[in-house]
Amino acid sequence: MRMTDLIQKKRDGGALTREEIRWMIGGYTQGDIPDYQMSAMAMAIYFRGMDMDETYELTMAMLDSGDRIDLSAVSGIKADKHSTGGVGDKTSLVLCPMVAACGVKMAKLSGRGLGHTGGTIDKLESFPGFSTAMEEDAFLRQVDRVGFAIAGQTAQLCPADKKLYALRDVTATVASMPLIVSSILCKKLAAGADVIVLDVKCGSGAFMQTEQDAFGLAQALTQVGRRAGRKVVAVVTDMDEPLGNAVGNALEVKEALAALRGEYRGDLMDLCLTLGTQILREGGAAKDDAEARAMLENAISSGAALEKFAQFVRAQGGDAAAVYEPSLLPEAPVKLEVPAPVGGYVKRIHAEGVGLVSMRLGGGRASKEDSVDLAVGVVLAKKVGDAVAAGESLGWVHARTAEAARQAAEQLAACYEIGPEPVERAPFIKGVVRCAQEGATA
Amino acid sequence: MRMTDLIQKKRDGGALTREEIRWMIGGYTQGDIPDYQMSAMAMAIYFRGMDMDETYELTMAMLDSGDRIDLSAVSGIKADKHSTGGVGDKTSLVLCPMVAACGVKMAKLSGRGLGHTGGTIDKLESFPGFSTAMEEDAFLRQVDRVGFAIAGQTAQLCPADKKLYALRDVTATVASMPLIVSSILCKKLAAGADVIVLDVKCGSGAFMQTEQDAFGLAQALTQVGRRAGRKVVAVVTDMDEPLGNAVGNALEVKEALAALRGEYRGDLMDLCLTLGTQILREGGAAKDDAEARAMLENAISSGAALEKFAQFVRAQGGDAAAVYEPSLLPEAPVKLEVPAPVGGYVKRIHAEGVGLVSMRLGGGRASKEDSVDLAVGVVLAKKVGDAVAAGESLGWVHARTAEAARQAAEQLAACYEIGPEPVERAPFIKGVVRCAQEGATA
Repeated sequence: MRMTDLIQKKRDGGALTREEIRWMIGGYTQGDIPDYQMSAMAMAIYFRGMDMDETYELTMAMLDSGDRIDLSAVSGIKADKHSTGGVGDKTSLVLCPMVAACGVKMAKLSGRGLGHTGGTIDKLESFPGFSTAMEEDAFLRQVDRVGFAIAGQTAQLCPADKKLYALRDVTATVASMPLIVSSILCKKLAAGADVIVLDVKCGSGAFMQTEQDAFGLAQALTQVGRRAGRKVVAVVTDMDEPLGNAVGNALEVKEALAALRGEYRGDLMDLCLTLGTQILREGGAAKDDAEARAMLENAISSGAALEKFAQFVRAQGGDAAAVYEPSLLPEAPVKLEVPAPVGGYVKRIHAEGVGLVSMRLGGGRASKEDSVDLAVGVVLAKKVGDAVAAGESLGWVHARTAEAARQAAEQLAACYEIGPEPVERAPFIKGVVRCAQEGATA
Repeated sequence: MRMTDLIQKKRDGGALTREEIRWMIGGYTQGDIPDYQMSAMAMAIYFRGMDMDETYELTMAMLDSGDRIDLSAVSGIKADKHSTGGVGDKTSLVLCPMVAACGVKMAKLSGRGLGHTGGTIDKLESFPGFSTAMEEDAFLRQVDRVGFAIAGQTAQLCPADKKLYALRDVTATVASMPLIVSSILCKKLAAGADVIVLDVKCGSGAFMQTEQDAFGLAQALTQVGRRAGRKVVAVVTDMDEPLGNAVGNALEVKEALAALRGEYRGDLMDLCLTLGTQILREGGAAKDDAEARAMLENAISSGAALEKFAQFVRAQGGDAAAVYEPSLLPEAPVKLEVPAPVGGYVKRIHAEGVGLVSMRLGGGRASKEDSVDLAVGVVLAKKVGDAVAAGESLGWVHARTAEAARQAAEQLAACYEIGPEPVERAPFIKGVVRCAQEGATA
């Protein structure tokens, strides 16, 4: 087999066979196939696409390029969740304890990530002493005992994906449906859960800019996932504005705690209830959506979810006092209110722009070596559709210095579009895709 | 500027600017832009194409990546010729002395090449002592004094093209019109001639399989060439069967000598007269096509072209005795006739297949290190349209051993398609494209 021939086949619109895909991914992982051939292939895939068989085989070949987590030592149903990423996404911090409180276990591997804020691991380090470094057997024991754990990745999962993603990132070949599907799924399959729920964001702040693309991705993800023998559900959600109100590490933890106390009922809780419902139903912990939702609501109102979260923080070495007393979490020295320049209705909040404000304040990292300032960020007071008077607060900036706060306030105001007419918000949950055969149900 | 952004721009159908193209080619030549980004760009160009401005800028950027030959020390008009390549192509050996005998000078750089036979340099080494290794000033003096020279390349012409072509070859991105145009033209522009005539082959044995593609390439080549200030003419010719009758190094030299003696009047001479006519007219040595053609015919019938060729062989250190006594050229020990398995009319001769027969006999090289057997090859007795009786000779195989001859004879017979009905040959010269503004004239 010659890689040049495979590139040409794909370039001319042919479908790669299982053997060709496995040969290619194996050779690329081992370094026998050079980057310059793989990038030409990725661009050919960008233009020609891949059918469902090819996408499945690519996913499985990448899965087989490395280790897998064996969750069989954990009793009961194990679930996992993935988000295609967005600004202000603290969903895992709320969803995991809710689901665990209802009896389904969550084994989550997470990363630090590059971007507007740190990753879930950075956010959790707002609790003094908290650590995500643990051996695999300790991780499994905690999932079994507490109901969930969030750990940094130690095993070598999907090295092919790691190498290919880095290449796609610098060759303008990220935005290809089959490459996205295989990259997301191979890691979730390697992480070993029975039930996988995927949050597919759509809108100006997301990978998939249109609803059509987002539903296409959701369909492909569930179809390939089911074929791989897992229960996979995808939820398509809005990312035209940031998720929730807080963007920034400790600020997002505080918002997550408010949600777990039942004091936050916005889009974030809407999302956690929807994702959690899918998990409980698919995992067999609830007989239908209504029962699942009632169980999750009860986990909040009873305090069980908050208690589960505190148990989790303690299990991973953290001081759980701040779970009940959030003012103990890192706080920025400067807080500056951002007044609305005009009155009217919020038409749009530029999610990407809000993320950049947080990042420039020091809340995110541009390169792997950067450290993250846990205390800084922004808290939005107004979301899309809200009425606002001129001079009324649009939000708050939490900064290290007065100068940084002044600049960030200006930038945050520029992220808002305010118009004279009332604005009808588009539905936040666009739809749930349960599997390719069943199609989308809103 | 970031290469990723340029790839994305081209991927999305945008046109690259002059500055972007020069930055990209400069960076790639210097090694600042890695192969894996350039191959993704090449694939994006394959799918999206380039407009005439981009193609021109790419050509000029590759031209400016290296040296140029300065032909100003040579008096009179200097011409150059390029062929997109084909099986049995010995055109330069006939055309250069014909044109030089008519007073237009030809400064040709040539290579050894990989393929079915050696390159022009290998073929010329059939003359004992002949050398193409010469310094640039010796080359220029010979062009001025003899009227033409054929030398191996010493100056570093278009290193960007060399690097990019090698990359395209292993990433299935050779067959892209703007990449072909810029690759051909940058080298011809660097070689310094005023008049450039291009032989664009079309058919099953060529790069461009359809007439439409071949004329498209011819148009683009002349348009970009004129814009670069040169007189460029492209001739579209048939490559559905091998050119001439001989395929193999010394065998092709013998055929070229027969043509120069006026004893060969087939497609090869047709081509040389057509190409030569363009050169003499564009170079101002003839007032119109009719006068140019008469001058070229006269160079053959008077023996002036053959004499010019002998002068050329001597000037480059070769023993010219074989020019007048071709039996002195290398001869293979085994000659085997290939009889027609059935009678009828030759419908098709698979050009690529015939080339492979010559290559397997040892006449070509598969890798740079291979040596070439100058004596071996095939000579076709029948061409497309010819009537043939069962058992009559289709051609001859010239081989090193009886076993090699037997195998080659079988393979050569398989290259022929013979049918019961008379066959009308398509015209060999498909058209002449003088420049984009004037369009094609058949």
